[in-house]
Amino acid sequence: MSDGHVRPAGESEEPLYDVNVRTPTHAERARTLAATFGTATLCTIARDPAGFPYGSLVTFALDGPDPIFLISELAEHTRNLRTDSRCSLLIAEGGKEDPLANARLTLLGRCATVHGEEERERAKHAFCTRHPTAGYYVDYKDFSFWKLGVEAVRYIGGYGRMSWVAVEEWRASEPDPIAPHGDAILRHMNQDHPAVMADCCRAFTKATDVTAATMTAVDRYGFEISVQTRKGPRPIRLGFAQPIASPADARRELVAMATRARESLGRSEDHRG
Amino acid sequence: MSDGHVRPAGESEEPLYDVNVRTPTHAERARTLAATFGTATLCTIARDPAGFPYGSLVTFALDGPDPIFLISELAEHTRNLRTDSRCSLLIAEGGKEDPLANARLTLLGRCATVHGEEERERAKHAFCTRHPTAGYYVDYKDFSFWKLGVEAVRYIGGYGRMSWVAVEEWRASEPDPIAPHGDAILRHMNQDHPAVMADCCRAFTKATDVTAATMTAVDRYGFEISVQTRKGPRPIRLGFAQPIASPADARRELVAMATRARESLGRSEDHRG
Repeated sequence: MSDGHVRPAGESEEPLYDVNVRTPTHAERARTLAATFGTATLCTIARDPAGFPYGSLVTFALDGPDPIFLISELAEHTRNLRTDSRCSLLIAEGGKEDPLANARLTLLGRCATVHGEEERERAKHAFCTRHPTAGYYVDYKDFSFWKLGVEAVRYIGGYGRMSWVAVEEWRASEPDPIAPHGDAILRHMNQDHPAVMADCCRAFTKATDVTAATMTAVDRYGFEISVQTRKGPRPIRLGFAQPIASPADARRELVAMATRARESLGRSEDHRG
Repeated sequence: MSDGHVRPAGESEEPLYDVNVRTPTHAERARTLAATFGTATLCTIARDPAGFPYGSLVTFALDGPDPIFLISELAEHTRNLRTDSRCSLLIAEGGKEDPLANARLTLLGRCATVHGEEERERAKHAFCTRHPTAGYYVDYKDFSFWKLGVEAVRYIGGYGRMSWVAVEEWRASEPDPIAPHGDAILRHMNQDHPAVMADCCRAFTKATDVTAATMTAVDRYGFEISVQTRKGPRPIRLGFAQPIASPADARRELVAMATRARESLGRSEDHRG
């Protein structure tokens, strides 16, 4: 999991929480990342200048674990793929101030046109669900559906969180069902229930002196909190009693944790909600 | 300039303006795009799986026409470049609702480490100016500066605006000095002077029946306007009397055009500003 660079001293401090709490695997994080975006960089082998790797912008959709493209015979990348089917797709999130802190994913494999009426309809459904405006060129004669059959997966979640993911694991994993609701859950918890977060930290971790707690991420297995302690900000992760699949599940789990935290801290006020 | 797809019928309507007005070349647009961003996709040839094109996220800065990278020997792309120096860099803008309407640029060439104290200092200056936080790893032993010597340039400005740019032209062109100020100029003109835009269209183009005009882009040679006409929205481009290099130049040119437009329309009110 380490990237081998010299680490800043602070990161070797003893964690405040149980580091064995269940955490999404790299395969799961990678599948979630791929399911979140619809635009990426396709890398092909150029015909001219021959043999150079060629990066181009594409829209894509997922058919299970494999990316689908709707591309024109007139495009450079399509001409390249007609000559050499080897390619990769770099999918990257944006938004973080430090670009290299953003998560990204490279899917490597061979790209082939989608053949057969049934296969083509499935590709069309997947693609047009993700890109509704593609409807206007989906039947252009120069456009075809292509599928990247994933053979290798490189995941980089940010600094010090990277690995080659086994392809079987990539295929077997599911995108996180909570990901599309993550921002809303974070907003709700941080705006309306900051005291609940702090209580959970006091009750379930070594961070008994927290002065403030902010939820920074949530996934099917648990959530992450940045706490203010006397020694400065520290990260915490807490796990749900069982994996969740919906915002309703998240609410139920968080209310149950809040109740247990208050009981553990010897309080009886009602913080439901 | 055409991409060869079937064009929607509306685009074949007769232009409302002089289409020979000076417009940035693809080389100039490409240099401007490259100067605007600091994060892109590097495409290298993978060692494993051998020969596959490999896309990865990198930060970059420009040393004139050539991109500079500060990358670690531990990174996949660096290991790939040590084996095969051929690479490309895809630089893409974001922001447009339709991802394929965004401008992008592929620079192809060979990547080599930057040698020599003077060269290294120049690379360091360029890189740390663009990425001030790189200061903390610039002296890590596993990091080196690399330079992509551009040999081929593919520019795609959006639908129907694409070409291979001659390398000499790429090298000889300059980024648009107005680009960093474009958003502010657009905001100012559209908020404070919509009537000026409409007058310029009435005076200098065939769009004599405009009911509203919005400036949509500005560059060193002129600006673009979307006008509302009886037949719906139409594009217009107007040129400055001479190329501009600063917001003060833009103001001077726009005030002069507004004055000429009013005179041409037989009005005498003062709309300075």
